[in-house]
Amino acid sequence: MQKPSLPKGTRDFGTIQMARRNYILDTIKGTFQLFGYNQIETPAMENLSTLTGKYGDEGDQLLFKILNSGDYLKNVAAEDLQNGYKQTLAKVSEKGLRYDLTVPFARFVVMNRNDLTFPFKRFQIQPVWRADRPQKGRYREFYQCDADVVGTDSLLCEAEIILMIRSVFEKLKLNDYSIKLNNRKILTGISEAIGEAGKEGPLCVAIDKLDKIGWEKVKEELIERGFAADSIEKLTPLVKLEADQPGKLAFLKEFLSSSEIGLQGVSELEEVFQILESMGENLDFVELDIMLARGLSYYTGAIFEVKVNHVSIGSVSGGGRYDNLTGVFGLSGMSGVGFSFGVDRLYDVLEELDLFPEDSVQSTKILLTHFDQKAFVYALGLLKKFREAGIKAELYPDISKMKKQLDFADKKAIPYVGICGDSEIEANEIALKNLETGEQESVSLEEAIARLK
Amino acid sequence: MQKPSLPKGTRDFGTIQMARRNYILDTIKGTFQLFGYNQIETPAMENLSTLTGKYGDEGDQLLFKILNSGDYLKNVAAEDLQNGYKQTLAKVSEKGLRYDLTVPFARFVVMNRNDLTFPFKRFQIQPVWRADRPQKGRYREFYQCDADVVGTDSLLCEAEIILMIRSVFEKLKLNDYSIKLNNRKILTGISEAIGEAGKEGPLCVAIDKLDKIGWEKVKEELIERGFAADSIEKLTPLVKLEADQPGKLAFLKEFLSSSEIGLQGVSELEEVFQILESMGENLDFVELDIMLARGLSYYTGAIFEVKVNHVSIGSVSGGGRYDNLTGVFGLSGMSGVGFSFGVDRLYDVLEELDLFPEDSVQSTKILLTHFDQKAFVYALGLLKKFREAGIKAELYPDISKMKKQLDFADKKAIPYVGICGDSEIEANEIALKNLETGEQESVSLEEAIARLK
Repeated sequence: MQKPSLPKGTRDFGTIQMARRNYILDTIKGTFQLFGYNQIETPAMENLSTLTGKYGDEGDQLLFKILNSGDYLKNVAAEDLQNGYKQTLAKVSEKGLRYDLTVPFARFVVMNRNDLTFPFKRFQIQPVWRADRPQKGRYREFYQCDADVVGTDSLLCEAEIILMIRSVFEKLKLNDYSIKLNNRKILTGISEAIGEAGKEGPLCVAIDKLDKIGWEKVKEELIERGFAADSIEKLTPLVKLEADQPGKLAFLKEFLSSSEIGLQGVSELEEVFQILESMGENLDFVELDIMLARGLSYYTGAIFEVKVNHVSIGSVSGGGRYDNLTGVFGLSGMSGVGFSFGVDRLYDVLEELDLFPEDSVQSTKILLTHFDQKAFVYALGLLKKFREAGIKAELYPDISKMKKQLDFADKKAIPYVGICGDSEIEANEIALKNLETGEQESVSLEEAIARLK
Repeated sequence: MQKPSLPKGTRDFGTIQMARRNYILDTIKGTFQLFGYNQIETPAMENLSTLTGKYGDEGDQLLFKILNSGDYLKNVAAEDLQNGYKQTLAKVSEKGLRYDLTVPFARFVVMNRNDLTFPFKRFQIQPVWRADRPQKGRYREFYQCDADVVGTDSLLCEAEIILMIRSVFEKLKLNDYSIKLNNRKILTGISEAIGEAGKEGPLCVAIDKLDKIGWEKVKEELIERGFAADSIEKLTPLVKLEADQPGKLAFLKEFLSSSEIGLQGVSELEEVFQILESMGENLDFVELDIMLARGLSYYTGAIFEVKVNHVSIGSVSGGGRYDNLTGVFGLSGMSGVGFSFGVDRLYDVLEELDLFPEDSVQSTKILLTHFDQKAFVYALGLLKKFREAGIKAELYPDISKMKKQLDFADKKAIPYVGICGDSEIEANEIALKNLETGEQESVSLEEAIARLK
């Protein structure tokens, strides 16, 4: 008899994990919908032609590929084996599993462009798969939770994303976090201003590590990447800058005065702040972080990142604006801005801070228990009434010892037990026991329903 | 530039389809929870050792297999190619995609048996994948929606499943349907009673086609399957039986008087009916169908099936009791009963009968529109207030012609538009336009919020 196991890097979600995960996801969904975003879903499998070449060489390696159905070897000759597995791949596999939600979304927009209403605001919550080496907190199957709007340049979208992030964090009772905002045009401007025009790519990659490795190590990396020493020196006042928001903006305008694109980045940032102010928002909760780079290369405007302070897990959300989501599929000029919540990380943060509400786990409100067949039949009538009143109710299904029934309620974290004994049956009542306090009282069915509502 | 496409047999769910699908799924979830079922999820990928051999040879063929990561050919020699793709499979693939939710659930129960509280009631709503030939209404990726309780023999579970089905149909406003109930022990008893003991398997397979091919063809099939002519003749009164529920039960008791297991089946059916009656239920909505067999071989007790009448699609739900869910993974004695809703079919039925509620599609309630930058800024303040009141609101993000903004609202099926013109700004009001009736009135923000709530 085989002992069953799970594939490496995958996991089950039991009832408690699911209830908690749904608590997070329902909070996020509710916020997305309040802001006019609608849900879509795309298939788990995509053609490899859709996926390959979008995530770099490493990403291509990490795609899970699906073996063609039937005789997958029919086009493979013995000499193909010599050519190696990469060359043979196209002969045995045509499909792969979704690696993120962005590429499938781009495909969706292109395929449905004539039916969509632009600006198109969509959210999508689905698992993705990566053949990464599994380690703590990194799985081969995990959920992504993305929201994007495409087909508009309006900076209202950026402002709304910041508000959505704040709204989700407030609803989850997460108080100590920071939303960091920057603009890729500023980073481009900086590379121009220090005399390294066109090198914003390597500049971003290096600066992205500032938090982790510190300024001295970043300088070394920049030298390795071919930046001139005096260019790097010009960065120092920026890296060391300590100022409030207006101070930072004033510094940037001066620093980037020779860079048109840099100044445009500053002006976009200012407009996002103005929109927030017009909405009556205090700007304290957004932090302009000139050194925020984010690794991804396709951002062209605003970039944001959210960190929860004082927990072991860092970034839990991030995103940015891109100029050309769908260009790779032949549809250009489709600008958009998007962000995502790291659901697994949020889960770990809420767990670490003990912020899951009690009732995200409780599902059944009352378990009806009984001593014998007669009481079981009596309880059947009550069961129907509880449910008709919308109260989640169960009846212990077997004639068993009371202790076993109470254990069941306890293990399922059911807060109330309804005991049906002879005296209750005679009085047409139910003994309502609160398992937390231990209090017990015989009441009418109507009274019991009223108390549980 | 490549033109993107979807893999054969897969599809995207756009915003309208998702909203409608969520309407169905939320209804089902709410009912499951009211009856004390909790949600779990299992990974899309399972080890092939978990999946293979559970669905018959045809099922094994239809499993989507995942190519091993990295050099998947490293164990394949040239001579392996001669042995054919089936022999080579174990060398290139270790994992497959979930084929149904039952086998993963059985694996889950076995792996978590020490942590679960039995009787364990779970529901699970996830996609499954089958490399079937795609055709109308049959996809390679589709959702299953299963509920099972394991670890009890109580017939309360059967009664509750019937009630859950009715509750879901009522909430979906589906009135014309029939829930058919039978018991596999009765079918076993029938094979004994007609002198073909042990042949209930082929008997069920043949009888399962009664609806589609008629009694004469079923008889032919039984002869082909080696049933004696006089055994088949004994079946005729059963097939032709027309009686009400008590009449059917009385007939069965007589017909099965020589079969202990058959009588046990009848007694189980009677108990299910008694439980329903004890709950104060009228039994009109359940039909005892002695000829209901269902193809699957692992049912051992109750079996049920639900059909919506007068639509092109037949069965939309079904299930039954099994004695040994987890035996194949080394844990015996785990009896349970389960059923599933065919979500895709329910979707098609509701669409055919035009039963989706309007507001399952609507998401945004009001679109704020504007003529110029000044009005845009004014609308920003209103936007925040609408959302604070919990009203799903959007502001058209670009300065555009009013017609374009109204078109946007129309295409997104947003029922109200809030127009911010100079006179409204001056009076600190908003012109609220109902897009369905065309009525428009300038009101205060508070009044607008009250009307939309």
